[in-house]
Amino acid sequence: MTACALYHFAFDPGSRTVRLALGEARIEFSETPVKPWEHDNPLVGLNPSGMPPVVRVTERDGPLTLCEPAAILGWIEDRSRDPVLMSVDPAERAETRRLIGWFDRRFTDEVNAVLLHERMEKPLLRLGSPDAVALREGRGALKMHLDMLEALLAERDWLAGRRMGQADLTAAAHLSVLDYFGEMPWKAFPALKTWYMKLKSRPCFRPLLADRFPGVAPAACYADLDF
Amino acid sequence: MTACALYHFAFDPGSRTVRLALGEARIEFSETPVKPWEHDNPLVGLNPSGMPPVVRVTERDGPLTLCEPAAILGWIEDRSRDPVLMSVDPAERAETRRLIGWFDRRFTDEVNAVLLHERMEKPLLRLGSPDAVALREGRGALKMHLDMLEALLAERDWLAGRRMGQADLTAAAHLSVLDYFGEMPWKAFPALKTWYMKLKSRPCFRPLLADRFPGVAPAACYADLDF
Repeated sequence: MTACALYHFAFDPGSRTVRLALGEARIEFSETPVKPWEHDNPLVGLNPSGMPPVVRVTERDGPLTLCEPAAILGWIEDRSRDPVLMSVDPAERAETRRLIGWFDRRFTDEVNAVLLHERMEKPLLRLGSPDAVALREGRGALKMHLDMLEALLAERDWLAGRRMGQADLTAAAHLSVLDYFGEMPWKAFPALKTWYMKLKSRPCFRPLLADRFPGVAPAACYADLDF
Repeated sequence: MTACALYHFAFDPGSRTVRLALGEARIEFSETPVKPWEHDNPLVGLNPSGMPPVVRVTERDGPLTLCEPAAILGWIEDRSRDPVLMSVDPAERAETRRLIGWFDRRFTDEVNAVLLHERMEKPLLRLGSPDAVALREGRGALKMHLDMLEALLAERDWLAGRRMGQADLTAAAHLSVLDYFGEMPWKAFPALKTWYMKLKSRPCFRPLLADRFPGVAPAACYADLDF
């Protein structure tokens, strides 16, 4: 029996990726919400970066601390005999790893660092109101990334191929935060919207749809499974 | 029999990680050097990011394109029955994945984006001479990262634990580029220097030590195994 404790911030895309992955893998976990911008948050002694997500597990061989999404996603695969959130097909495995890296770097730098900074970090850290020029720039970058995802999904059932997996959960986690803040132009991306509806109706997604950001109500379609 | 073709840029840390990993795994490969900043470079049709490293392999099941270090390192593990550049220990596997993410984001953003921009990108792209303030800032950030690595190596043989693996090759690839440009203050980091000497004397490292950057001679100790 594994006791699994997750430290997370509800609107951090990496934390959401891990909540979805643990849910899909049917691993029960307790939750400790953390505020990574507070200097005395409980992650300071657990993860050298001080950031969520972190999972602590107690297994037969003793306790194990898993810092950052890659370590947690990797552990979910390692503990199972068969692939859980990865395809067995070499091309789909390569594509999964490529896409996760794309979200980690390109999407984070070009979209999150701009749009989530304006919509989420500014109210949290009391940095003033959103900047119109930055919002326009972030939305333009988001559109380019959504074009790329739409093109992939025109040819595939799931982002990396024929099987739902790590790439889908990573992408959905990122897009779900933007969706909360009303930043997802779903109508212009029909294949992406169909893909997201399929993910959103899975049980692993339910807890995310109940998240609430202080002082900001979710966009009307956020928790609607048939948006 | 696998035919393996690597597209790389000699002074890109991710490309170096892959050259080291293929060398350690004793996978023979042909090399195509690319200049990722040129719009007609051969990666444009292969990797959506347009960036190296990319590996193309032809195996029994057909051709496979592996974009970015994670996909290539993952493929090296997948094709073997036993771990190649990963420990079997769950804690060391988690630490390996954490450290690779650290270099991908933190080290890249805080050190490479400043120091390698000044020392490498500016001459390549003819952007003028290095900026003294930026150089000082980059060197300060580098020192903090080296402090962290030194502390890890005071307690461990290798960065993630008892076995040489992906984390060591990723870190050594990054540091080797800085070393070429004379940016590595080895004397202040004795445990790190010993670790690097061990890696540098492995056969996989030899091709990197023969690399030459146009118009910049390597630092005196760069190719010296007993520096």
